[in-house]
Amino acid sequence: MFGKVLIANRGEIALRVHRACQEMGIRTVAVHSTADATAMHVRLADESVCIGPPNARDSYLNVAAILSAATITGADAVHPGYGFLSENARFAEMVEAHGLKFIGPSPDHIRMMGDKIAAKDAMRRLDVPLVPGSPGALDSYEDARAIAEQIRYPVLIKAAAGGGGRGMKVARSAEELEEAWRVARAEAKAAFGDESVYMEKYLDRPRHIELQVLADTHGNVVHFGERDCSLQRRHQKLVEEAGSPVLTAADREALGARVTAGLAKLGYRNAGTLEFLWQDGHFAFIEMNTRLQVEHPVTEMVCGVDLVKEQIRIAAGEPLGYTQKDIHFGGHAIECRITAEDPETFAPSPGRVNTYHAPGGLGVRVDSALYSGYTVPPNYDSLVAKLVVHAPTRAEAIGRMRRALSEMVVAGIRTTLPLHQAVMDDPEFQSGDYTIHWLERFVASRQA
Amino acid sequence: MFGKVLIANRGEIALRVHRACQEMGIRTVAVHSTADATAMHVRLADESVCIGPPNARDSYLNVAAILSAATITGADAVHPGYGFLSENARFAEMVEAHGLKFIGPSPDHIRMMGDKIAAKDAMRRLDVPLVPGSPGALDSYEDARAIAEQIRYPVLIKAAAGGGGRGMKVARSAEELEEAWRVARAEAKAAFGDESVYMEKYLDRPRHIELQVLADTHGNVVHFGERDCSLQRRHQKLVEEAGSPVLTAADREALGARVTAGLAKLGYRNAGTLEFLWQDGHFAFIEMNTRLQVEHPVTEMVCGVDLVKEQIRIAAGEPLGYTQKDIHFGGHAIECRITAEDPETFAPSPGRVNTYHAPGGLGVRVDSALYSGYTVPPNYDSLVAKLVVHAPTRAEAIGRMRRALSEMVVAGIRTTLPLHQAVMDDPEFQSGDYTIHWLERFVASRQA
Repeated sequence: MFGKVLIANRGEIALRVHRACQEMGIRTVAVHSTADATAMHVRLADESVCIGPPNARDSYLNVAAILSAATITGADAVHPGYGFLSENARFAEMVEAHGLKFIGPSPDHIRMMGDKIAAKDAMRRLDVPLVPGSPGALDSYEDARAIAEQIRYPVLIKAAAGGGGRGMKVARSAEELEEAWRVARAEAKAAFGDESVYMEKYLDRPRHIELQVLADTHGNVVHFGERDCSLQRRHQKLVEEAGSPVLTAADREALGARVTAGLAKLGYRNAGTLEFLWQDGHFAFIEMNTRLQVEHPVTEMVCGVDLVKEQIRIAAGEPLGYTQKDIHFGGHAIECRITAEDPETFAPSPGRVNTYHAPGGLGVRVDSALYSGYTVPPNYDSLVAKLVVHAPTRAEAIGRMRRALSEMVVAGIRTTLPLHQAVMDDPEFQSGDYTIHWLERFVASRQA
Repeated sequence: MFGKVLIANRGEIALRVHRACQEMGIRTVAVHSTADATAMHVRLADESVCIGPPNARDSYLNVAAILSAATITGADAVHPGYGFLSENARFAEMVEAHGLKFIGPSPDHIRMMGDKIAAKDAMRRLDVPLVPGSPGALDSYEDARAIAEQIRYPVLIKAAAGGGGRGMKVARSAEELEEAWRVARAEAKAAFGDESVYMEKYLDRPRHIELQVLADTHGNVVHFGERDCSLQRRHQKLVEEAGSPVLTAADREALGARVTAGLAKLGYRNAGTLEFLWQDGHFAFIEMNTRLQVEHPVTEMVCGVDLVKEQIRIAAGEPLGYTQKDIHFGGHAIECRITAEDPETFAPSPGRVNTYHAPGGLGVRVDSALYSGYTVPPNYDSLVAKLVVHAPTRAEAIGRMRRALSEMVVAGIRTTLPLHQAVMDDPEFQSGDYTIHWLERFVASRQA
């Protein structure tokens, strides 16, 4: 097992990885920008190294500084967390070239899944279900038009190199296609330096359902069931559940069997998540995240697994030590992502947290790097706390989340706590009958 | 189901009951002394009533004030928590006489188990294993001497009306017996107004193992396995585990079957805990607590049950809805009782908590009524937080507890956090090979 791990991240996810390491007796190295000198992940790590100024490009994305920090401190391995360099194949290669283990998949698989078209090609070959669409990048507007007629409107034009909703446009008719084509390409060019776009059938009322997998270096691949992440605003997830209110155990097993067989064939290793749109009983693969995800805790709660410890064990060459039939799904879990934003306008609200008080009690988990007196810097993602609950049933989990939200105090900045309370109180959310469009409308109705 | 429950307690246990009620959609009434006007249980309850001055006799033990509060606020039921009036049969009777439900066992069963001799008689009849000893209160010193010769030294003399270690003395030989007899009777008289004492074989290296049970009003009785509460100082538990490091699943099943059959015969209802000494594979019943216990969370973690919700459902007349075979034991849980005391001298350390920061992350549960700026009053029990962890194995649970303890901040007062860290770091504790005497020696070795 590793003696020391460098955590190439910040905030709650750096803390998450640190906790797993500390529990395993592994020493940790935190890296931080000058804006994060007093951050919780720095305070708790065994060692810390300042890697640059606040701008992420000069610190958390500064590969040379991070590798120097790893070398100087004598780390054996690097955990990238999520975001930042976690899906940068070149970074994974350089970590390994420096004689360190990269706690994640192989650079080739990161690269493959980072190219959304190559990822779909791979999944098609591996018999993972896909949405109808263009077989690859669209050659021309005429090409786009022909395929849209074939798969029928509405259609979606998406950046081949994209993610996070940038370079993504819907066309509901032939009239709307030309502008969607033009705007998507321009956004793709601006955001990713690559104007390639592809087309997909636009599902009008889908859910976003994703499958968590783990693969070791001995050929074992297992899945830990699904997460329903349909509650999104501008393609940012706000509330996640495990399991999905619409999936049966048989649905889960069938999808899981197909996916794990495919990834075994691919030789994939470490953690990964396959994201699907789901509508009327059909799954359509959209992308694969070759890293830990923000919402991984809900899976941990229902399966009783520590996904970060498993990532570390896999990277150290250990076999999983269990098979699919040993994985049981117990109860229901919900996560609320609390962000430092106005709960109605979503304007960022960084600043000093005068008082932070986490809820407690049975079935409540808080993943947060907040503390009383901490100043949330304006430079990074606005996520400040993940509040997770677990209970025997979905109804009880909602009751528990309402209770936990009512106890939580983050004073001094605005947060999305009131929005989460409103979602949990809503009868439609409680019914479980929602699509990926539900939250946008809910937010709009609150603003009106 | 009840519409409103009055919680006749304070501190973390009042908060624990409030949380269960809130999650079930039941409104709560807090009662509080003038010393607790700003306490967390008062802040979070739907309503609160001041029931008297700080002295518990005039507030939390003031039956008339509590019943008035229940009547005025229109409560349907009363939850007594633990301590205070929770094992007062007369209080339970008066609650029911006022047309309210008492969330607990029948007054008769409370009374029976409150009399330690009557409790043993009952358990003897119900085929629950007992320690050798006097069949009842000792008539005379000569009687004590004869029985001690028969069951062999060392022996224990205990107050018949007692609890909490008062009126309890060991005699290791005939020479020591006379003083033990005299002191135990004097202490019993002073503490309980009753000098009756009885005798038991003194087990020299036992563990304290207790069994959690639930019984509904429809004749169903189940157990939720054992807790190992051997880590005690002056008969006060400090660390509890579920399951016990020394018990097998077969041991648990055998004891559980005997106990549940016995309680079914007795017609017991609601929650209860049977406490045993265990040595060399044998159980010896010591007493039954007819209430929720401080350490109930470790059972909740391994069984996935909410014992307080179950207590409420049972009191409302609902059947359990599951049988023994539906109860599964998953992983290992440990609880550390954090008290406001000096970690070496155990001198009380009330006062203002300038900063309170609870640990978080996977498998960590905090039951505490602390908050930053709260002043721990000097008037009550020194327990300020229960830190509970759950993990797949005992070794992982210990790793998690060490991690969680290292994150916890209670600044401004002294607490037993450093003692708990030392216990978790100790190889002997880690081996699981300890008796009820281990902690006393461990504490002494730290003081030396």
